[in-house]
Amino acid sequence: MAKEPKQLDELFHDTLKDIYYAEKKILSALPKMAKAAQNDDLTAAFEKHQAETEDQISRLEQVFELIDQKPQGKKCAAIEGILEEGQEIIKEYKSSPALDAGLVSAAQAVEHYEIARYGTLRTWAEELGLKDAAKLLQETLDEEEATDQALTQIAESVVNQEAQSAAA
Amino acid sequence: MAKEPKQLDELFHDTLKDIYYAEKKILSALPKMAKAAQNDDLTAAFEKHQAETEDQISRLEQVFELIDQKPQGKKCAAIEGILEEGQEIIKEYKSSPALDAGLVSAAQAVEHYEIARYGTLRTWAEELGLKDAAKLLQETLDEEEATDQALTQIAESVVNQEAQSAAA
Repeated sequence: MAKEPKQLDELFHDTLKDIYYAEKKILSALPKMAKAAQNDDLTAAFEKHQAETEDQISRLEQVFELIDQKPQGKKCAAIEGILEEGQEIIKEYKSSPALDAGLVSAAQAVEHYEIARYGTLRTWAEELGLKDAAKLLQETLDEEEATDQALTQIAESVVNQEAQSAAA
Repeated sequence: MAKEPKQLDELFHDTLKDIYYAEKKILSALPKMAKAAQNDDLTAAFEKHQAETEDQISRLEQVFELIDQKPQGKKCAAIEGILEEGQEIIKEYKSSPALDAGLVSAAQAVEHYEIARYGTLRTWAEELGLKDAAKLLQETLDEEEATDQALTQIAESVVNQEAQSAAA
């Protein structure tokens, strides 16, 4: 009988591959979102999150190492769909005063996907006794939650007013 | 010059159609998740959320009415991707002690997508002066957040221990 909880191990590893793939996709989407944004604070938020995403990818690589696995992505249909909706907004709301509001909305959908995945992975890491991995995952989770809150503030203070005033 | 913030109106309406489509997809996925779950608390949580989802769809229909629009869905690539990952877990982890942990994870990805969308819609409804709509959207947002927390508790207290003990 194996003492290790093999099945949860595998689920942890599978989900790690899912978010690793997702983070790389997000990293390539962020410069497009920063470029599309009209508001300077929003551009700055996307650029800041781009740097954070690089750190998050590096943390994931450390987690792979902690479970003696090679960093590897696995096609993540969820992030493909979420980013596709963001691209649609950039296309459909180009030159619209509501573009930034749409970009924030798209970015928050991305953040919440990550919050769900990192929350799950952190919990599983704890269950599996992977303390160092849990710490790294918690660090990223905190960053994602802070990014989500920063986006909410931008949305409330600037972006939505822009969308309204331009049409007034 | 139009006094109404037309563009944000349109973004609000588009996003309403997105989540209306998503809720209907979720409603048809929940019985499969309830059936697949091994743990009784998890089955009960999925069944409870199924009833809530019906109410949430009805609230969305009220919001459509408040903006003088017919309830209508718009293909949402994000929810398709998120639910696809849930179906993969049901298939790949069938009969595995980690199945329930995977189901909770899939359900929390769904919840977080909804939390992002309802948070955005609620904020926009406030900006647009749609007080009754904002109230309805907030009600659903509160339910989604409660569901997410309930799933975290189930994951921490039961599901992950099952996944571990079965392999011990």
